[in-house]
Amino acid sequence: MKQVDFINGKTRVFGIVGDPIEQVRSPEMVTWEFKQRQHNAVLIPIHIAQEDFDDVIPDIMRISNLDGMIFTIPFKVKALGLANTLGPQASLVRAINAIKRQSNGDWSGEIFDGVGCVEAFKRRGIALKDRKIQLIGLGGAGSAICVAVAHEHPGLMRLFDLNERSTEQMVKLVKEISPKTVVEVGISRCDGVDVLMNASPVGMLSDARLPLEVEKFSKDLVVFDAIVMPENTPLLTLAQNCGCEVVRGREMMLGQISRLVDYFLAT
Amino acid sequence: MKQVDFINGKTRVFGIVGDPIEQVRSPEMVTWEFKQRQHNAVLIPIHIAQEDFDDVIPDIMRISNLDGMIFTIPFKVKALGLANTLGPQASLVRAINAIKRQSNGDWSGEIFDGVGCVEAFKRRGIALKDRKIQLIGLGGAGSAICVAVAHEHPGLMRLFDLNERSTEQMVKLVKEISPKTVVEVGISRCDGVDVLMNASPVGMLSDARLPLEVEKFSKDLVVFDAIVMPENTPLLTLAQNCGCEVVRGREMMLGQISRLVDYFLAT
Repeated sequence: MKQVDFINGKTRVFGIVGDPIEQVRSPEMVTWEFKQRQHNAVLIPIHIAQEDFDDVIPDIMRISNLDGMIFTIPFKVKALGLANTLGPQASLVRAINAIKRQSNGDWSGEIFDGVGCVEAFKRRGIALKDRKIQLIGLGGAGSAICVAVAHEHPGLMRLFDLNERSTEQMVKLVKEISPKTVVEVGISRCDGVDVLMNASPVGMLSDARLPLEVEKFSKDLVVFDAIVMPENTPLLTLAQNCGCEVVRGREMMLGQISRLVDYFLAT
Repeated sequence: MKQVDFINGKTRVFGIVGDPIEQVRSPEMVTWEFKQRQHNAVLIPIHIAQEDFDDVIPDIMRISNLDGMIFTIPFKVKALGLANTLGPQASLVRAINAIKRQSNGDWSGEIFDGVGCVEAFKRRGIALKDRKIQLIGLGGAGSAICVAVAHEHPGLMRLFDLNERSTEQMVKLVKEISPKTVVEVGISRCDGVDVLMNASPVGMLSDARLPLEVEKFSKDLVVFDAIVMPENTPLLTLAQNCGCEVVRGREMMLGQISRLVDYFLAT
């Protein structure tokens, strides 16, 4: 029979929504997880122009065999409005990167950037407990990373974002989640910390800037960048030149996949 | 790497739209054709409730990496309004079962039921030229079959549909396409014909009726039914019990696949 074995009339559909879309890796990785779990589903790329998002996405959600969506740049903030209820991480962070249809027809939203980042460190065998961490950028992904890292009970978290309100909210959250963690706010520095994390957009695509003023890193510093494109941001290039261990945005994304599929398939 | 090789961020998306959807076979078969031609694309099932069609489909057409759709029951008639231009078969029949995005952004529509039916007969080695044919049902699929069969220049075409206007239009069309074909109109009969074709919905799903009054067929009669579900309609069951050769709706669908993919991929 001239047919493929990975899609048919009973296949459930998931999507990743972004603009641009060609760079995303979830279609091949999430679909692989579905197949591993013998769930008849595929995750397709869905390319939506920014100005079309508000009109088009609510109608895509009316496709009866579409069960969930992931949102990537530039839709992480807009997506929040699509969810009727929020999961535990999203409730704290007030941002989502995935929605799923619940059995009652409602849509719930959750964010996996934070758990993906912590998972990436675990897979590298790098503990965050009691470590001193500088986190730059507290937008959607940065807030999620902040919350997930706080749950690991680091010794120090030094937070920086241009938005003072976001920063204050995160300081409060970290203190709630991990009362023994020392929390500092102010200009980003890499002295006196063990791990430097960038979750700001500085260094993305053709942006040649560094997210902080620095010329050289101590080789004991671990440097993480949430940016996926390029794989080696200016920050990570400098860190590698200084002999530092680096953790990439792609590893954060890989760390999310199995948690995302857990979420999509939970009833 | 934990990933599948059949979908990624660059995959182009096609869909088949219907209600219900689980019975469709295009996803596995059209996707197989895409893969054979080394075109990075999948065809997914898209289940839309009837009342949602008018709102949702125009928005789905705004997904930038969605290049075409097939329409099945009950959307073949409604779909006509989505096309800015019509292909040669659709222009004659005034119905479509597929649309594709053109390079200028317009959507063109075409119907493949007719060519699929003729292809099914060709694959069986059954010529239609000079044969006497009774065709029952001149809706979307029936009209397309009528036009495609007329292009084969049968000796006689006896047409029946409850809608007199549809019937008159088809009589006119057959005479234009094949002036030497004798065209008759009236109550469906199987005496004096070589091929009996049903394109009416009578016999679909749990409908136990026959599309014409008959108790027995001559074993020389070839009987075709455009219905896909069930595979053996009451008409085909009777025909097989009488020793007739039968051609099934599924064969018509198979006959369409490669023509559909030609159409989708032509620039």
